[in-house]
Amino acid sequence: MTDGIAIPATSKQLAEVAFNADGLVPVIAQDIQNGDVLMMAWMNRESLEMTFAEGRMVYWSRSRQELWRKGDTSGDRQFVREAYFDCDADTLLFKVEQEGAGACHTGARTCFFRPFG
Amino acid sequence: MTDGIAIPATSKQLAEVAFNADGLVPVIAQDIQNGDVLMMAWMNRESLEMTFAEGRMVYWSRSRQELWRKGDTSGDRQFVREAYFDCDADTLLFKVEQEGAGACHTGARTCFFRPFG
Repeated sequence: MTDGIAIPATSKQLAEVAFNADGLVPVIAQDIQNGDVLMMAWMNRESLEMTFAEGRMVYWSRSRQELWRKGDTSGDRQFVREAYFDCDADTLLFKVEQEGAGACHTGARTCFFRPFG
Repeated sequence: MTDGIAIPATSKQLAEVAFNADGLVPVIAQDIQNGDVLMMAWMNRESLEMTFAEGRMVYWSRSRQELWRKGDTSGDRQFVREAYFDCDADTLLFKVEQEGAGACHTGARTCFFRPFG
């Protein structure tokens, strides 16, 4: 059964994350099964800590200005398997198991389904 | 020989890109060979148009406040092979051929080389 497994991020690592002026950091969710980039969204410190504790992606919705526990409404949760920060710690990458139909509110597997050109 | 191939993005598609209040859009570069997420950076409209025209990643450097033709200094250019915008057109995904050692200024192949936990 798919379930959340906590990520043991250290307080030193958490302190290193460079949130922007709005207290947010961009987060990329990548499908650990096939490598597809599923979506990009934002986390604040609280949602990042919830994500590590629950092993499940919890974003900050900028449009609704509230915690966004991905999949609570749609059922399409994202379970964290690996988490990385980049060289200057201002962008995060999470490799996830995507539950259900997909990451996108349109029903698509990935939000990046529209090619240029 | 690796080279840039222009991406025929339409003016309708370009008009749809949702730049933020600073006139920037976050851009994810993914290695088309192995699916690794290489880096996330920003483009303004001018650098996006240059990227499509040259078939080569041109970012906007927020720290230097200037166009950043990736690889001009390091030699590690990124050639565009596919380009996507997401469902709400406020994040872009480029699948690229990464030249040289890698995307990261540290010399790493990807900027996301530091795991949490």
